[in-house]
Amino acid sequence: MRKLKITELNRINAKEFKEAKKLPLIVVLDEIRSLHNIGSVFRTSDAFRIESIYLCGITATPLHSEMHKTALGAENTMDWKYFKKTLDAVDQLKKNGYIVYSIEQVEGSMSLTNLVLDKTKKYAIVMGNEVKGVQQEVIDNSDGCIEIPQYGTKHSLNVSVTTGIVIWDFFKKLNLSVFS
Amino acid sequence: MRKLKITELNRINAKEFKEAKKLPLIVVLDEIRSLHNIGSVFRTSDAFRIESIYLCGITATPLHSEMHKTALGAENTMDWKYFKKTLDAVDQLKKNGYIVYSIEQVEGSMSLTNLVLDKTKKYAIVMGNEVKGVQQEVIDNSDGCIEIPQYGTKHSLNVSVTTGIVIWDFFKKLNLSVFS
Repeated sequence: MRKLKITELNRINAKEFKEAKKLPLIVVLDEIRSLHNIGSVFRTSDAFRIESIYLCGITATPLHSEMHKTALGAENTMDWKYFKKTLDAVDQLKKNGYIVYSIEQVEGSMSLTNLVLDKTKKYAIVMGNEVKGVQQEVIDNSDGCIEIPQYGTKHSLNVSVTTGIVIWDFFKKLNLSVFS
Repeated sequence: MRKLKITELNRINAKEFKEAKKLPLIVVLDEIRSLHNIGSVFRTSDAFRIESIYLCGITATPLHSEMHKTALGAENTMDWKYFKKTLDAVDQLKKNGYIVYSIEQVEGSMSLTNLVLDKTKKYAIVMGNEVKGVQQEVIDNSDGCIEIPQYGTKHSLNVSVTTGIVIWDFFKKLNLSVFS
């Protein structure tokens, strides 16, 4: 089983990426502190070709000089917008017809394992700060909360890992055939 | 939708974790450089209660003084072993009846989307170095290679994100009822 060379991976280029059909999903980063996490979310978002990343509050944008070190180029292909307030991002998404889910452990959350998605709809997922999670006012304005079931001793997963798991799950549930 | 307090998450304690039934899965880290990535894998492995993490070559172990900063305590609950050579870890796993899959982009790889698992079997997944990927000799001694399909411009995902996606996928396919 020979490892493929980078040139054999047949990745699309930046221009093709801009024009390509996207997974109808936007990731909202609510006050994310770590550049490592933000850059990692850019890479994952590029890989599954989602529509956009909304960067909110203290979340650094690709204008940050250190962003390239962690996004490794995905900061140049991925569409993004900056919002001072996460709530404004959520309001705009809802006005534009997106179903907005916060990824958080709350009373009455839906488990990601049971989540059913409608392939005719557009979705946004809100990922919260590394320590504080998603802001309560953002949760209150979401259409629902999704929780990743966890069975260990720790109370949460790393936010870039959580984003990867949820994007992967949405990718499989929304439409595997989008890109084929 | 009120956010749950940490005490309301009803996590198990370290003693209960040791005694609890595990997901029949072992993660092998083949020459992982970044403490951030290793710590993150410990957190994910704790959350989905996998059997063990095999740390190989330059991969730091919980004996490293900085490990706690990224593993956040999961280094105390998760079972782990150190191997100087990744190939020795693979050999031991195969002798012990594990099916060993390298997570790598190779000729003839299986897509994670199509992967079917046998709930009566035990599995190990090998995650490669951040730059070089899984070593060719480790690939050659694996039972197969699994690839996460990617549709963007970049050639790979962050290794801790990849581990999260694959563990989540195995968790769903192997047995959701293990912990219920």
